[in-house]
Amino acid sequence: MGGLRVHGSPFSTATMRVLAVFHEKELEYDFVQVDMKSGEHKTDKFLALNPFGQVPAFEDGDIKMFESRAITQYLAHTYADRGTQLLFKEPKKMADQSVWVEVEAHHFDKVASKLAWELCLKPMFGMKTDEATAEELKGELGKVLDVYEARLSRTTFISGDAFGLADVHHAPVVHYLMSSPAKEVFVARPHVGKWAEYILSRPAWARVVALQNKE
Amino acid sequence: MGGLRVHGSPFSTATMRVLAVFHEKELEYDFVQVDMKSGEHKTDKFLALNPFGQVPAFEDGDIKMFESRAITQYLAHTYADRGTQLLFKEPKKMADQSVWVEVEAHHFDKVASKLAWELCLKPMFGMKTDEATAEELKGELGKVLDVYEARLSRTTFISGDAFGLADVHHAPVVHYLMSSPAKEVFVARPHVGKWAEYILSRPAWARVVALQNKE
Repeated sequence: MGGLRVHGSPFSTATMRVLAVFHEKELEYDFVQVDMKSGEHKTDKFLALNPFGQVPAFEDGDIKMFESRAITQYLAHTYADRGTQLLFKEPKKMADQSVWVEVEAHHFDKVASKLAWELCLKPMFGMKTDEATAEELKGELGKVLDVYEARLSRTTFISGDAFGLADVHHAPVVHYLMSSPAKEVFVARPHVGKWAEYILSRPAWARVVALQNKE
Repeated sequence: MGGLRVHGSPFSTATMRVLAVFHEKELEYDFVQVDMKSGEHKTDKFLALNPFGQVPAFEDGDIKMFESRAITQYLAHTYADRGTQLLFKEPKKMADQSVWVEVEAHHFDKVASKLAWELCLKPMFGMKTDEATAEELKGELGKVLDVYEARLSRTTFISGDAFGLADVHHAPVVHYLMSSPAKEVFVARPHVGKWAEYILSRPAWARVVALQNKE
């Protein structure tokens, strides 16, 4: 089991996505802080781990990976017998989970991570939110969450009746936005609001957030 | 085996991605044309197949899916014993393939599909290419393909030494761009140029392109 290592920042949503899976799977890991303020992710040393110069990067012995959603899939498959079961074996459930993993990446995150940048990350870095952009993104997020509301009125979790990888993938950006004025976009849709609260209430998620407070 | 059905357009890159896998796996399927010009993908009937109103949508008996990369993963897993083997079983190879499937989606496609829109799809729909945007996108694509060139100087295919799902996913956008002035961005990088030519030379791919000529 030894040798799991993740390089990243506890404030990066992509890093947090991977950390959430580590904690759901109850896996021990080494966390290597990447100092993004000084541009450490653009150094040759880090580019050898991820040629695109983005956190996180991951090592499991001689297996080296980057791209948060590839790492989470690897962890969920390789450590299937550990902690929370995040994957489904039944073909229809597996198909639904694949669909909603893609929806998170291509519909939700596409809009929501830009909104989290405007409302949460920019102020954290001493930059000013562009209010017009934020309003426009809130409108776009609302349209995505209308689809989620319809979905979550039929299923307890986004890909079906059990909590799974597709839900976990949303946690970091939901975390930022639910602590921002964009919370209203979630809670105005009752099933979405309840689902968002549940995701953030997972003990594994609390352990990811605790890493930010160590800073 | 009966009952595989895909709804889409033979000119949509997401539809073509799924069709490429059907042909690599030598699967029989029904193709249901979605008339995007008349907005058929925004009708209630189509929204019941994909609530985001985008092609393709897919049915395999009672399994209904959307999102092209979820459908291709499903086909590659479910029909693993048919046609070309697109997945790898060895953990390191599987990890590499997961990484490059994500790279296609989040780095390559993000830039290259916008460029294909400017250079290929807009003229096809009687619209004018925005040359300044196209030049900027060509510059961005070049940076992504610099990473690909370094990768492909060490491996024959993008995720390793065998052709696999990560390669297939690139085919539709590579197809459009290699028939456009953006071809120079590929062929200026010799390993990338050779890889792009190989992807387009697959007999399965020729069968996807032939569907466009039936129009």
